[in-house]
Amino acid sequence: MSLDPAFPVWIDDQLVDAHAALIPVADRGFTLGDGVFETMLWIGDEDRAGICGFAAHMARLSHAAASLGLAPDVDEGAIARKIRQLCGQTPGTKAVRLTLTRGSGPRGLAVPQPAPPPRLILNAAPWTAPAGPLGRIARSSVMRAPGAPSSRFKTLSYIDCVEALRQAQALGADDAILVGIAGEPLCASAASLIVVREGTAFTPPVSSGALPGITRGVLMAAGLVREAPVSWADLQRADALLMVNALIGVRSVTRFEDRTFPGAGPVGASLAAAITRHRHTSLPQFEAALASGG
Amino acid sequence: MSLDPAFPVWIDDQLVDAHAALIPVADRGFTLGDGVFETMLWIGDEDRAGICGFAAHMARLSHAAASLGLAPDVDEGAIARKIRQLCGQTPGTKAVRLTLTRGSGPRGLAVPQPAPPPRLILNAAPWTAPAGPLGRIARSSVMRAPGAPSSRFKTLSYIDCVEALRQAQALGADDAILVGIAGEPLCASAASLIVVREGTAFTPPVSSGALPGITRGVLMAAGLVREAPVSWADLQRADALLMVNALIGVRSVTRFEDRTFPGAGPVGASLAAAITRHRHTSLPQFEAALASGG
Repeated sequence: MSLDPAFPVWIDDQLVDAHAALIPVADRGFTLGDGVFETMLWIGDEDRAGICGFAAHMARLSHAAASLGLAPDVDEGAIARKIRQLCGQTPGTKAVRLTLTRGSGPRGLAVPQPAPPPRLILNAAPWTAPAGPLGRIARSSVMRAPGAPSSRFKTLSYIDCVEALRQAQALGADDAILVGIAGEPLCASAASLIVVREGTAFTPPVSSGALPGITRGVLMAAGLVREAPVSWADLQRADALLMVNALIGVRSVTRFEDRTFPGAGPVGASLAAAITRHRHTSLPQFEAALASGG
Repeated sequence: MSLDPAFPVWIDDQLVDAHAALIPVADRGFTLGDGVFETMLWIGDEDRAGICGFAAHMARLSHAAASLGLAPDVDEGAIARKIRQLCGQTPGTKAVRLTLTRGSGPRGLAVPQPAPPPRLILNAAPWTAPAGPLGRIARSSVMRAPGAPSSRFKTLSYIDCVEALRQAQALGADDAILVGIAGEPLCASAASLIVVREGTAFTPPVSSGALPGITRGVLMAAGLVREAPVSWADLQRADALLMVNALIGVRSVTRFEDRTFPGAGPVGASLAAAITRHRHTSLPQFEAALASGG
């Protein structure tokens, strides 16, 4: 069994046991990668519980769903209540995945008319952020095309990231840096890349094909990270390289090619503090969503 | 129901009714687009029956599966026998889809170790090639990255093609031309693009990100089409624009921007004849596969 058997799974409005969590082979998420997903952090302790950055995740999801014509609207209240039922029964931090597909269709790429009902999956698993820094990151030859839906949105068409990571791991590295059309570094397989130099933090632009990460967005909104084109030489001469995403928060990179980095440094520490702060200050968003809608 | 209810579906070694054709939500084909597919033409008449170009489809599948580390080997004999059971009960032409995924996994991109068993789906539907030419094709802004697995292989990560087609149809066009990193035309959403000029047929290079289509490969191997970079101006001044894939064979395009084309022309007719010939001469490959292996 590949899902955590302790957690049931929401398939639309049915909460089913993990072993019975099945979808039709005609789902376009399966046949064509025609859908999007979000990976979110659930904090559950005695004082408070909820999804961190829920509003930002829902905003990215709604934007993608609208842009792709996937779903007319996303019911944030219903999603929040389903997540609470999934995660709120037991204490602890969890990784929650939301998957939204275009639903089932006959063969072919054309979206059926009338559009099929979209399909929403929610599942969870216990989550502990990895301790210590990431080891070595490697250049990948896998290119992300700017302007392609698979780059602009967090879609189910994720094989390029899967393959970049697989190739890197086969060579003994811990993650891969995917590239833009000029061969420049963009982002890791499942994290945004932040380059720290002389007290300033940069990240490659979304317009070049970098994934619009939620945590990246939080740090940019806080004025702590700014977008700028990044070269491989910038990675070599950085004071620190950092990976950020919703689950890991900030994680420093130990090695890139012949360069070894001392650690996250003071900028890394300030980003980590900002993320922790945002995680807690954003929890009321989730509370508000629980009370909203139908 | 989105699958043809008259056809059962193979899920690994189980032949199930279409309404019961389900896969786990943990399948990486679903969660990450981590798999590949083939769409094949079944001919079934009184004299002979089988998959056209079976060897070429299996070669592309095996190459992709090996390159992506998806499946150690592809049992062509078993696949052929499953397809015969699916399609051979009734006469008529059918579209057969083979889907091969990396199987189920826990959350995250990393391929589980040991690798999960891959999952193989085979389904079929009646197929009649569309009569007459395609109407209008439109430029897309959707870019295919050369060297990306999603461009090199026919993977389940297909949302870029879906979205290019959807955007074109929303603007009243019948198909979209996806672009390379210089913005040049590459291929349609689900067909190779062939440009005919002064009796010669060209198609954009796979090295630029065009999908390595099976029918495109047949025509190239026959010396009837050759790879060359193609510009938008080439489309404007072409004598004919043709779409080719395994199901439609050859289909001419009627309009691109302000240019109207008279039809497939003599080159188009010779390509169509070559495809028809290949469809029939390749059927013994399928017969041979039926008799092979376990």
